[in-house]
Amino acid sequence: MKAIVTGGAGFLGSRLARALLERGTLKDGEGRDQPISKLTLIDVTEPAGIADGRVSRITGDISDPAVLKSIVDRETGAIFHLAAIVSGMAEADFDLGMRINVDATRTLLELCREAGNRPRVVFTSSVAVFGGDLPPLLNDATPLNPQTSYGIEKAIGEFLVADYTRKGFLDGRSLRLPTITVRPGRPNAAASSFASGIIREPLNGEEGICPVGRDARIWVASPRTAIAALIKANELPSNALGNRRWINVPGISVTAGEMADALERVAGPDVARRIRWARDERIEKMVLGWPAAIDNERALQLGFEVDQNFDAIVRRYMKEDMVAPVGRGL
Amino acid sequence: MKAIVTGGAGFLGSRLARALLERGTLKDGEGRDQPISKLTLIDVTEPAGIADGRVSRITGDISDPAVLKSIVDRETGAIFHLAAIVSGMAEADFDLGMRINVDATRTLLELCREAGNRPRVVFTSSVAVFGGDLPPLLNDATPLNPQTSYGIEKAIGEFLVADYTRKGFLDGRSLRLPTITVRPGRPNAAASSFASGIIREPLNGEEGICPVGRDARIWVASPRTAIAALIKANELPSNALGNRRWINVPGISVTAGEMADALERVAGPDVARRIRWARDERIEKMVLGWPAAIDNERALQLGFEVDQNFDAIVRRYMKEDMVAPVGRGL
Repeated sequence: MKAIVTGGAGFLGSRLARALLERGTLKDGEGRDQPISKLTLIDVTEPAGIADGRVSRITGDISDPAVLKSIVDRETGAIFHLAAIVSGMAEADFDLGMRINVDATRTLLELCREAGNRPRVVFTSSVAVFGGDLPPLLNDATPLNPQTSYGIEKAIGEFLVADYTRKGFLDGRSLRLPTITVRPGRPNAAASSFASGIIREPLNGEEGICPVGRDARIWVASPRTAIAALIKANELPSNALGNRRWINVPGISVTAGEMADALERVAGPDVARRIRWARDERIEKMVLGWPAAIDNERALQLGFEVDQNFDAIVRRYMKEDMVAPVGRGL
Repeated sequence: MKAIVTGGAGFLGSRLARALLERGTLKDGEGRDQPISKLTLIDVTEPAGIADGRVSRITGDISDPAVLKSIVDRETGAIFHLAAIVSGMAEADFDLGMRINVDATRTLLELCREAGNRPRVVFTSSVAVFGGDLPPLLNDATPLNPQTSYGIEKAIGEFLVADYTRKGFLDGRSLRLPTITVRPGRPNAAASSFASGIIREPLNGEEGICPVGRDARIWVASPRTAIAALIKANELPSNALGNRRWINVPGISVTAGEMADALERVAGPDVARRIRWARDERIEKMVLGWPAAIDNERALQLGFEVDQNFDAIVRRYMKEDMVAPVGRGL
């Protein structure tokens, strides 16, 4: 069975690819475990080389239908659609966000329909589909009212996935990912980029700028939880989701101040002092518009995992992802 | 100021056009009353001739961007976007529904953005945006979970209207219309077509087929209420809606059996006996998936009107819309 990861050059995409290769199998459109004979990674920048004969790497613009058409075929049983324009960039460039987050998603679903073998499609949505006047704790009955273009585009993607599934064109599942932290690498244009930056940069001996106040509360999950959720979403029997094709991936609720405190506990005060608090209204407005906490019940019942606490997230990042781990007291 | 009615050949579109001409003014993008200097009616079939020098009639496919481009300009201050593929047809022809209900809507919004004068856009959505496991009484906090392609497409339209508004490209308002009854004319491909047919056909001396059971409860409004809502939506100051750019147009909750009873009370048992109860599972499934009742509070506070009861709706239809009124005891 062939599998596809869009956004395969990204942090989550390349990590997912490694996890899939290690695992070796995935559920096909019929829910049967199938060996992954081919794993296609597609991204706008060249996906990193992974030394594995099953991997095929494509560099191209997924908003060009010909690019996606070249990889989606009847043998494609599982698709992980991670490629997206992130929140800050989708807000700055409306047309680009619509083209990638809406049009390319629709093209991908349409190609699955044409292929006719009803592949499993895991679509990465986001808690940014929520917005407006939010309760302190959201649940599965909280209506979508996104207040960013990114959130609107992800909500549209969810609705498309739901209807293509209902029509029997494919078997789709949308994962609303919390803010993923700690991401290795460099800052990106996501408004949530600071949630990794204020941990990662101080650990790297650099200044980590926090554009939101200490009290700003966000909903986060670790990369490990996100990758496990992506695979779990493919594993779920189709009828486990019923007519709600989306899942709020379990997260934990932390304030920026609590994140800084966790960093201090785990890596020491000298590291935590490298966080510089410098409010950016544009970013703060987007971040504060997102959910602070969501009831994890349904997802946990479905078997999704949740992080223990933010200290554990920081510790795991230092152990597994830091290029040059920095110990306590540096 | 120029105004546009898409779907201007339809029942609601042509009735709205007459109401607008009679009224003579509309709010422009700044919320000021402006004389309607030109009213463009566009539809795929030729809009009926209305003897008024302000009216311009265009026949064309609104999914062809060139057609819409020819009518949306900087002088266009108000747009009523009624053109749509109805529920039954959107379910039968997925591509057609997406092309008209999603793509043409987006093209229209995009042309408003290009024009740059931030016109008021009233988008006709539908209670079909609701679905799934619905409570007996919905309210403004009920999440959207459409279970028809029509509902998905209208939900996507609402999200687009909301984001184009938030971005300042236009000033949009989405009206979730209840099932409109009693419509004059002939049955159409809407799954809700029976809601007019079981009243209209018996009054015309014909058999009116009811494809749902007597207990099937639906949410309805009269044509007069719908037209008033469309104009009211244009009238509302932009900030009256805040970040919720949609309005659940007030309706009343009736079962098919109660509709038949009302017909009997108003027009007599001989007329009501012309309803033939013949269940159609495909239609019943769609209809039962829609809301049975919605809390009207917010809309009433905003100044929208509501029908008195179904007897009054039948009486008004007989008085104002029947080609040849049929009295009690016919």
